[in-house]
This record gives sequence, structure tokens and C-alpha cells, in this order.
Amino acid sequence: MTDPFVVVGGDAAGLSAASKYRREAPDRDVVVFEKGDWVSYAQCGMPYFVKGDVDSMTDLLSLSPEAARERGIDLRRRHEVTAVDPDAKTVTVRSEDGTFEQPYGDLLVATGARARSAPVPGTDRSGAFTLHSMDDTAALRAFLVDEAEAEEIASVDYVDADYVREYGARDPPETAAIVGGGYVGVEMAEAFAAHDLDVHLFQRPEQLLRPFGEAAGDLVAEKLREHGVTVHLGTEVEALTGDDGALSGIEYDGGRLDADVAVVGIGVRPNTDLLEGSGVELGDSGAVEIDEHGRTNREHVYAAGDCAEMRHAVTGDADWVPLGLTANRAGRAIGQTVAGDPEPVGDIAGTAAVKAFELECGRTGILDHERARDAGFDPVSETVTAGSRSGYYPGNEDTTVTLTADRETGRLLGGSIAGEDRAAVRIDTVATALESDLTVPEVERLDLAYAPPFSPVWDPVLVAAKVLASDLDAE
Amino acid sequence: MTDPFVVVGGDAAGLSAASKYRREAPDRDVVVFEKGDWVSYAQCGMPYFVKGDVDSMTDLLSLSPEAARERGIDLRRRHEVTAVDPDAKTVTVRSEDGTFEQPYGDLLVATGARARSAPVPGTDRSGAFTLHSMDDTAALRAFLVDEAEAEEIASVDYVDADYVREYGARDPPETAAIVGGGYVGVEMAEAFAAHDLDVHLFQRPEQLLRPFGEAAGDLVAEKLREHGVTVHLGTEVEALTGDDGALSGIEYDGGRLDADVAVVGIGVRPNTDLLEGSGVELGDSGAVEIDEHGRTNREHVYAAGDCAEMRHAVTGDADWVPLGLTANRAGRAIGQTVAGDPEPVGDIAGTAAVKAFELECGRTGILDHERARDAGFDPVSETVTAGSRSGYYPGNEDTTVTLTADRETGRLLGGSIAGEDRAAVRIDTVATALESDLTVPEVERLDLAYAPPFSPVWDPVLVAAKVLASDLDAE
Repeated sequence: MTDPFVVVGGDAAGLSAASKYRREAPDRDVVVFEKGDWVSYAQCGMPYFVKGDVDSMTDLLSLSPEAARERGIDLRRRHEVTAVDPDAKTVTVRSEDGTFEQPYGDLLVATGARARSAPVPGTDRSGAFTLHSMDDTAALRAFLVDEAEAEEIASVDYVDADYVREYGARDPPETAAIVGGGYVGVEMAEAFAAHDLDVHLFQRPEQLLRPFGEAAGDLVAEKLREHGVTVHLGTEVEALTGDDGALSGIEYDGGRLDADVAVVGIGVRPNTDLLEGSGVELGDSGAVEIDEHGRTNREHVYAAGDCAEMRHAVTGDADWVPLGLTANRAGRAIGQTVAGDPEPVGDIAGTAAVKAFELECGRTGILDHERARDAGFDPVSETVTAGSRSGYYPGNEDTTVTLTADRETGRLLGGSIAGEDRAAVRIDTVATALESDLTVPEVERLDLAYAPPFSPVWDPVLVAAKVLASDLDAE
Repeated sequence: MTDPFVVVGGDAAGLSAASKYRREAPDRDVVVFEKGDWVSYAQCGMPYFVKGDVDSMTDLLSLSPEAARERGIDLRRRHEVTAVDPDAKTVTVRSEDGTFEQPYGDLLVATGARARSAPVPGTDRSGAFTLHSMDDTAALRAFLVDEAEAEEIASVDYVDADYVREYGARDPPETAAIVGGGYVGVEMAEAFAAHDLDVHLFQRPEQLLRPFGEAAGDLVAEKLREHGVTVHLGTEVEALTGDDGALSGIEYDGGRLDADVAVVGIGVRPNTDLLEGSGVELGDSGAVEIDEHGRTNREHVYAAGDCAEMRHAVTGDADWVPLGLTANRAGRAIGQTVAGDPEPVGDIAGTAAVKAFELECGRTGILDHERARDAGFDPVSETVTAGSRSGYYPGNEDTTVTLTADRETGRLLGGSIAGEDRAAVRIDTVATALESDLTVPEVERLDLAYAPPFSPVWDPVLVAAKVLASDLDAE
């Protein structure tokens, strides 16, 4: 009997791999070890549960443990893999019943990432959250709502009920401090504002949402302020302070803010501790190096999702951009590959979208000039603001597009879009163009859809390409 | 002194060319002859003016005659070019002051298209419209509103005031018959419904919006019916009937409908009568054949816009798809080429979008299997319905995507999308992919944006590509 396909981690990449593997090889075994209680949950939905847009915690699960088992997946929750031995082809598993060695035929490391809290001291205080786990999400929402609703949350399957009840019993907070102006920070500003808190967002750089570029970052800051959020740019948070392990405020360069709830969203780092001593190579990012099929340098060991690097479509180099689609796609491809039908995991372009109240933002590829230069390009950018619809059609909204290209070849390297009318999905046009290695003049000539209610004759992306093309022309 | 650049037709292609030419060659002359009163008007906006979404006729003008003159364009309205002599390099121009010969250095034929009415008799009856001119649009709206508002419309510059007043003085119609279920028909159904008319739409084929494929066509019919429009599919209109030249009803195979207003939208045909005897070659469509720079077979004679064919990005063959962006882009490119800096007019993919009440539809490339086979492909299609957002996020709407590919090469040939949440703009992703010659597996691996409020992990386009790719795989 052959050893099973062993998957470490029961979230997007791991369960996508296990599901695809079972469909392709229904007579072979797959075991998934998940160290926690929750599996296959939508991290990106958490701020919207806290806000109240999502009714139930369980709505965030794309696959329940029961449904995973129905697919023939041997899912073991509360099982932590602590070591990998590629020579012996075993993993060491720790569970409530003790520690054991599990042999594998093939192994997928899909351990994800965890929230960074360093270098900010005090993030372990009660009232401070990183919002990277379902239990944190449940507890934070319980904190914001009345006790009856908190009790409903506590009674949901898999939830750490004591933790949730502890917050449910408290008085709701009045002032929220958000540390970090990335996705989590911006989305949580909207979530806290919906609960009528006095919201302060602290961002060390002078710009929110740095991967989205300056124009989008400025518009998001403006939008947050419009909704009453106090945005502290260029401001470093020095500590989360308080007595007896509880949060009562934030100290930052320039002052102090009394706050009774805080969310720290200053990035994540890959979970790779279990690979120590395994000989599996990590990249510069600290995430696992993989090839086009998700294979690591050690035979029969694969990695996917937030713990793995991927090839960037623009640079051709390994890069680490932990995002949901990447994890799902790579997991699925590896499931198919392990089942015997090799499938590439695909490249990434770092395409992402985020909502800030009414404002929609999208980004893809390489916008940052320093990064573009590091990759050997000579970057040039243009930012334009154009209408989302025909000027005469109601609902026409300013749409701000930045495109970056390589001066020498004219190749499109990256883009970002911000606006209130269908702006975010337009980034997919830019993503498709740069993954197809189009030049800016080629983008300018794309035959995109025109209809007064959805787009002007010249779509904002085409307007930006036109302006950038004339820069390139003028050289 | 050199002869001027002469442009025939003062709409999108003509004035784009003239404007670009003046910017590139500010010391050289350009003369634009327009046979009517109106220049540079947004045809696609007309149904929305009739409906009432657009406040004023003049909002539909993208360039006024005064603004054109400020750009240094010698614009002559009510000047009809009746003949072209490429040997003598002259055009024959008829105006109120008589007929004259105008020499040209270069000539652009941008005469557009006109509404087809054949083979339906009676389209010249009073109360029947083709909605291809600004005056028709003005008169139709005047018919629907009260006399005071009609008088406002009649007093707008350039409008045929007598024609408008004639309709303004009538009792508003109660029953509308729409002949043809293309863009104009579907948009006019929405417009008439907004005025609380009893609306009947007649379509000879069994499907509305044929270029959008069956799935989108069915959804549009359903949406129209939901809003009280009676949709008669597979029904041929035999005549528009009435006494004394006025419309009183519609005769169709199967019955008769009393109607006091009708719009006939059964297609357009290119205006090329002026080229008779000129030796300028027309394609099978009846539109002018051009090369990649918009040149006809006769030296110094260009053509662009609704009267010209263009190269199709998928087939590589000449095709005739009269659309707004195509006209603007080709006109602009020719203006630049004639000024001395050759610029390609670009390919077309037949990308288009249309709104039917809340439903948004987009289409691109080749969907029709017969057409695909004619172009040498072996077509295979899949239609899927997937969510527009994460399932747990409010406002998630069914989005129906059809993709067509070539079985042998896997190349994406065409697509259509229909849905109520940002569906139409998603077609630009498909358009960009097929203009980049992507295969379906390449589309499946595109790194598109995921964020719960805008798109699920797997965008509907990716879901369709995944399903179609597995068909291709199974062969």
C-alpha cells in the first residue's frame, strides 16, 4: 500500500489540493493536518463580519469539516505538524493524544502566514487584535455588539466560546486605534466606523495602501477622512499601553491616544518553522522556494499558498505576495500534479483589490519605480483621471488610473485604479494585459467595451495608456 | 501651397482625425464637410435622452461646431460631398450656395452609416422613427413629454424646431412597437417603459441581441418581460400601417398591434454612395476596404468609422462592426498618419456592451460557431453562472459567462457576460485576453483581482475558463 498524500494546513491551498486530488485520484488517500479548529475560512471576509455585512461566522467557511470528509478527505483538526523529514518521508504530528510520525507519499506544506506584531510592543494586551484568526474575528465582533448577539456568536460551531464571551460581557469600545494602513487597516476603519466608533488609523509611511501607489493611497486617505476617520500618516506607533495586560491607549511619535480597542495590521510572515532542519529551501522572503509545479528542492515535497513564493509574471523572478486566489489556484494545481497530471501553479502579478467605503481600488504588477529598477527596467509612469461613464450619463465618476511601463521596450509593468464606479474590476484588464506582455501602445489599441452606462468611448485604462504612450513616443 | 486635408463627415471618426491632425500639424489646413447640422454627437446616448436620463440634447455633443473651429478646423456644415475623384484629387461638394470642386492633399471618408429600414414597409410614416439622427431623437422625446418640455427641446441650437414642435403638439403615445431586438431595440424598450408606455418588442430571430449569444439573449428577454415589456420572438413585422401617412399599428406574422409610436432598429448600412465611380474598393460588407493605416486602394484616400471595414483581431480578416470606439480610434490614427507620423488604426474584436434595465451585458470576439468555422476554427463553448462577489458578501449576483475557444489550439475566440453586478466591464478582461491570443488554460491562470465586495476568489471569467479548459483537456 502506498503512503498517503499528506497536506499540512487546512485552509485555501491545502483543502484545494486535497479536494482536487480526491477528484482526480478517488482511490488514493489524502490526509490533511490542521493545527487549529477552523478550516477553509475566508480571511478576506473577516473585516466584513466585524462590520456586520456578513451575518454569520459560518458564512465565511467555504468548506466545512463535514463537507471535506464527504469528499473523502481525512481531515484531522487540532493536529500540528512540527517537523518534516524528507529523507524518511515522514512528518512529526502533535495532537491532544500525543506525538506521532506520519509517512507520506507526497507532502504539501500549506501552512499559510501569521500576523506580524513586532516591532510594536503590547499587541498581546486584551483589547488588541491582529484579526488573523476566526476566533479573534469572533471576539472582536462580540466586543462591538450587545451581549445577546455576542452569545449567538459564542454558540457557533468551532468558535472559542469562552474567548468570545469574555469580550461580549464588556462595555463596547468607544475609540479604536488601527495600527497599519494596509488592507486590514483600511477595511477595519470602515468596519469600526459602521459601529460609530471614533476611529484613528496610524500609518508609518506617508501613504496608505502602499502597493496601490500614491494616487490611490491619497484618494483612500481622503475618503477615510470624509467618513470621520482620523488618519495619522508618517506616524509610528511606539507601543500599545495599559494596566494589567489590558489596552487603554496608544503611544506614537508625537502623542498619545486613549483607545479601548486596537487592531494591528502591519503585515504577515510565512509559517515555515516546521521546515527547520528539513533541507527545504526558503527564498529571501522567508517563504518556500518552489518551481512551476509547486515543487520544493526536496523530492515529493510541495508548498503552496501564503507560505510559498511564486514566479512574478513581470519580473520572471520569485516573489512573495500572499493572496487568496494564488493559494487556491496553486493548491488545486498541486492536487492535480500529485494525482499524476502535472499542472502549472501559474504566475502571479500581485493583482489585488480593496474597498474603502465607496471607493474601489485595484492594483497589479509593478508600480514602484525602485522595484522596477531592481528588476532591470527603466520605469516611467503616468496618472490620469477620466470618467467611468459617458460624461452625459448619470453616475459618471472620476476614475484615477496609474500605469507604469518600461521606457526602453514600452512594456506595461503595472497599474492601479481608484474610483467609485466599477473601478476595481477594471484592474483585471490591466492584469491581463501585463500577463500577456503587452506594450503600452498595444494597450492603447485594445478594443474595450463602450456603452454610456458603463464606460466612455475611451475607457479610463485607454486614456492612461494614450498619455503614457505619448511619453514613450517623445523619447 | 499644398491642398488641405479634406474630411467627409463631421462625427466621431472625422472630427477625431481633424482634431489630431491639427494638433500634430498646426500650420496645415483641414476642411471638414458635414452634410447635416449636427456634428460629433453621441449616437449611443440617444436612447438615454429619449428615456430622460440625459438632460439636454447638447450634452450628447462631444465637440460643438464652435469648439471645432477653435481647434483650427475649417468645419462646413450643410455641405454634402457627392463624388470623389482620386485622379484629380478633388471632391464634389453640394451646399446651399451651389456645387463646387474641392481639391485635397489627403482625403478621409468618414461618412458613417444610416439606419436600414428595408424590408419593412411603412417606416416613413409619421410616428415611426429609426433613431439614427439627432433630430429624430429630439422629435421622439418631444412626442413623449408635455408641450412645455417639447418647446425647450425645439429651442436648442441646431435642432429642426418645426419637426420637434410637430411632435410636441401631439398627445403622447400609449403603445410603442419596437421593430428589432438589437442594441437600439433593447435600449428603447427601457426608454419607453420609463414613460409608462405599453411596450412591444418584435424580433425576427428567436433571440434578442444575437451578437451576445444565447445565454445573454435569454437573460435580456427575461429582464424585459420582468419590466412589463411584451417580447415577441421569432416574429416578423410585415408592415407599419395607418392612414394618411400616419402610424396606427403594426402587422406581424400572427397578428396586428395598435401602436401610436414605433422605433425601427434593424441594423445600419455604410454610407458609400459618394464613392461610386471613384475606384475606391468596397468589401463584401459594402463598407470601404482599408489597410492597417486606414488607407483605401486609392492613393491619398483614407476611410474610417462606420463606413469602413477593419481587421478582426481573432480572424485576421476584414470585418465590418460599426462601433464608437473603433471610429474614434481610427480617425485619430489617420489624423496622425496624414500629419506624417504613421499610426495603425488597430484591430477590432467587436467588443460591445449594452444595458437592459438592471442587466449589464458585454460581448467580444467570435461566439457564433458557424462564423468560427468559416474562419477556420473548430469551436467549442461553455456557459457558466457564477457569483459576482464572495457568496457571503451582500449584493452577490449571478454572472453568466460564455466563452468560445478553438478545440485544436485552445485559443480563446470570444466571450459574453451578463449579470447585474459589474458584469459588462468584466468583458474587457476577455477582450484583452483574446486580443493577446491567449489560450483558455492561460486565461484560467490569469491573476485577477479578488476582494469580497467586487469578485469571488475565482472570478466568473476564471470559472468559465476552468470549465472550458477541462473540455479541451478531455479531448
